[in-house]
Amino acid sequence: MTTAVQDMLNAYPADLGDVDRAKLARCIEECLACAQTCTACADSCLSEERVDELTTCIRTDADCADICGATAAVLSRRTGYDADVTQAVLKACATVCKSCGDECERHAGRHDHCRVCAEACRRCERACNDLLTSLG
Amino acid sequence: MTTAVQDMLNAYPADLGDVDRAKLARCIEECLACAQTCTACADSCLSEERVDELTTCIRTDADCADICGATAAVLSRRTGYDADVTQAVLKACATVCKSCGDECERHAGRHDHCRVCAEACRRCERACNDLLTSLG
Amino acid sequence: MTTAVQDMLNAYPADLGDVDRAKLARCIEECLACAQTCTACADSCLSEERVDELTTCIRTDADCADICGATAAVLSRRTGYDADVTQAVLKACATVCKSCGDECERHAGRHDHCRVCAEACRRCERACNDLLTSLG
Amino acid sequence: MTTAVQDMLNAYPADLGDVDRAKLARCIEECLACAQTCTACADSCLSEERVDELTTCIRTDADCADICGATAAVLSRRTGYDADVTQAVLKACATVCKSCGDECERHAGRHDHCRVCAEACRRCERACNDLLTSLG
Repeated sequence: MTTAVQDMLNAYPADLGDVDRAKLARCIEECLACAQTCTACADSCLSEERVDELTTCIRTDADCADICGATAAVLSRRTGYDADVTQAVLKACATVCKSCGDECERHAGRHDHCRVCAEACRRCERACNDLLTSLG
Repeated sequence: MTTAVQDMLNAYPADLGDVDRAKLARCIEECLACAQTCTACADSCLSEERVDELTTCIRTDADCADICGATAAVLSRRTGYDADVTQAVLKACATVCKSCGDECERHAGRHDHCRVCAEACRRCERACNDLLTSLG
Repeated sequence: MTTAVQDMLNAYPADLGDVDRAKLARCIEECLACAQTCTACADSCLSEERVDELTTCIRTDADCADICGATAAVLSRRTGYDADVTQAVLKACATVCKSCGDECERHAGRHDHCRVCAEACRRCERACNDLLTSLG
Repeated sequence: MTTAVQDMLNAYPADLGDVDRAKLARCIEECLACAQTCTACADSCLSEERVDELTTCIRTDADCADICGATAAVLSRRTGYDADVTQAVLKACATVCKSCGDECERHAGRHDHCRVCAEACRRCERACNDLLTSLG
C-alpha cells in the first residue's frame, strides 16, 4: 500500500515529543486497515445466504470501522497533544477491536472475510495496547 | 432541526432493553450538534487574524468532531448491544468534549464561535456522562 | 435539537460571500439528520426478521450516512471556499439520497424506520439540490 | 502497510460483477492513504510558523480527508451495487484531490508535508479517474 504514515511523521515540522514513532505509525496503519476491513466484512456478511446469523457481526463491524477511523485521525494529529484524549480513544479502539475480533472469530471457520477481519482486529487491538503502554 | 432521533428509536423493531430512551436520544443529538459545531469552529479559527494563537483550538476541534461523530453512530445502533464498547466510546467522547470545551472557553471572550462551541462541548460532555451514569 | 448551525454561521469572522445562508444552514442540518437516520435505519433493518430482504437497504443506508456526513463537514467550512468541491459533493449527496430514498420507500409500508428514513433522504436530497441551484 | 483490501475483495462471497479488481483495490488504498496524509498535513500546517499562509491548505486538507474517507467506505461495499452513487462519489473525490493537490503543490518547495501530501492527492485523483474510466 502507498501510505505515507512514516513520511508524514518525519515531515512534521515541530517536536513530536518522546512518543515511540514506530509504534505510533504502526497503530495509525492498523487503525486504517482495520476500518477498511470491517467495512468490507460487514458488506460481505450482507451477501451471505445466512445473513440472519451475522447481524451482530455486521453491527460490531460498523462500530469498529467508525471508532478505528476516528482513532487513526486523532493519532495523525500531533499539534497541541492531549494525553487524556489519546488514551481514552486508544482504550475505546482496543475495546471495540476486542469485541469485533471475538465476534468475527466465531464465524472465521465458515467465512473467509470474518477470518481476515478477525486478524485485522487482533492486530489493531495489539497496536493500540502497545501504543498505550508506551505512553506510560 | 429536523432530526428524527426519537422517531427512529420508536421505530426500532426489537427490544431496546432498559436504556433511558430520553437520555440516549439527547446524547445522540448532542454528539451530532457538537461534531458540526467543532468543525465550524475550527474553520472559523482559520479565518481569524491571529490564527497562530488558535492552533491548539483547531486541533482539539478536529478531534472532538471525529470522536463525537463516531459516538453518535455507535449510539444510533441497538442491534447486538455491547456495553463495553458503549461505555468506552462514551468515556472517550466525554474526555474530548471536556478538553475542547476548556480550550474553546479560553477564547470565548474574544471569539463568538469559540463561545458557542464551548457551550456545545459542555452540553455534549454532560449528555455523555448522564447516559454513562444511567447505564450503571 | 440543540444544533447551532445558524449560530455558527453568524459567528463566522470573515465574509461568507453571497451564499444563501438559510439554504446553507438547512442543507447542513438535513445532511446531519439524514446521516443519523440512515445509520439507525440500517441497524433497525438488522433487527427485522426478514433481514435477508433488506440487504440492499442496509448497504445504501451505510453509503448515504457516509456521504451525508462528509457533505455536512465540507459545507460547515467556509475558509478558502472551493466551488468545484462544493458542487461535486452536493451532487454526490443528492445522488445517494435519491438512491437511498427510493430503496427505503420500497419498504416504507412494512417498516416504520424505512418510512422515516425515506422522508429524511427526500428532505436532504431537496436541500442539496436547492443549495446547488442557488450556487448558480 | 498491513491492509487486506485485496484479501477482502477475494473473500467477498457473491459476484463482484465485471469491475476491474486491481483498479478497485488500488483506488480504495489510495483513498485511505490520501485521507490519512491530508489529516496529517493539516496538522503539520498548524505547527508551521507561518500558519496564516496555510489556512486554505488546512481547509482543503480537511475536505479531502472527509471525502476520501467516505469514498473508501463506499467502494469497499459491493452488495447492491449502485453505479450512480459510485460514479458521483468518485467524481467528488477526484475533484477534491485535484484541488488539494494543487494547493499543497504551491507549498511543496517549502514544506515537506505539503510535498508528500500533493503526491498522495495526485495518486488518489488518478486512481479515482482510472476506476471511473474502467466503469464505462
